[in-house]
Amino acid sequence: MTLALRKAEKEDIPAIMSLVRELAVFERAPDEVSNTEERMLREGFGEHPAFGCILAEKEGEVIGMSLYYYRYSTWKGRRLYLEDIIVTEKARGLGAGKLLFDRTVEIAKEEDCTGMMWQVLDWNTPAIEFYKKYNARLDGEWINCHLDFE
Amino acid sequence: MTLALRKAEKEDIPAIMSLVRELAVFERAPDEVSNTEERMLREGFGEHPAFGCILAEKEGEVIGMSLYYYRYSTWKGRRLYLEDIIVTEKARGLGAGKLLFDRTVEIAKEEDCTGMMWQVLDWNTPAIEFYKKYNARLDGEWINCHLDFE
Repeated sequence: MTLALRKAEKEDIPAIMSLVRELAVFERAPDEVSNTEERMLREGFGEHPAFGCILAEKEGEVIGMSLYYYRYSTWKGRRLYLEDIIVTEKARGLGAGKLLFDRTVEIAKEEDCTGMMWQVLDWNTPAIEFYKKYNARLDGEWINCHLDFE
Repeated sequence: MTLALRKAEKEDIPAIMSLVRELAVFERAPDEVSNTEERMLREGFGEHPAFGCILAEKEGEVIGMSLYYYRYSTWKGRRLYLEDIIVTEKARGLGAGKLLFDRTVEIAKEEDCTGMMWQVLDWNTPAIEFYKKYNARLDGEWINCHLDFE
């Protein structure tokens, strides 16, 4: 059994959106996904891509992904932000999550970021334990705020 | 007394960093600011700026700012993220915060974003009350995670 990583191409959008929808179910918010394949193609694979994405494959099948982009901390400078790291349920426990996470850390370093950021749900204990192994700094003092235009 | 908004230029970096340091003191984390004017010049005012910034002025003096960039929600598509909205203490109560916030919402709409996002500290009640007037959706279930490379 071999796991491999590769950069996502626009042909992978259906696989990406399938993982995104699986994550939304896991995060108890399946109705929150209003994004579409057309929007993702336009925003993520045009001249100025809004994100980067690496995929994990097992025997040629996409089983996970890391989707990231760059943010700007006025306190720290340019940071990589890991928006989603997802491994499909049937492929858990094979190390794909660690492989994707480690590659994302490498990209942040290659891109001269001062650090890397992400968020985790406060009840997602397995993920919190995983991130603690990296000596990540966790800060639960913040509230996310949203204004939706559509 | 007239308030005016304008786009920040690289000559404004010292005023921006001064507001950033004031915010860090207010947020009880003055030692967290490791960013420098040189880094901000390189990352924010070069060929591919990592952020946009608008300033509020009162009689030619910078009294506040909104600093933002674009993020990508796999669930919602491209979003404007308001990283910092700051009004210097002596200029509070004049409406500069509302002016800056409203202009940032306009920019998000002009840029065809599906919405706008930001964060607020869970003890910052005046800010939370301000955002509730916009019918913002507040979500305290998330923990911020950081890996610092430097």
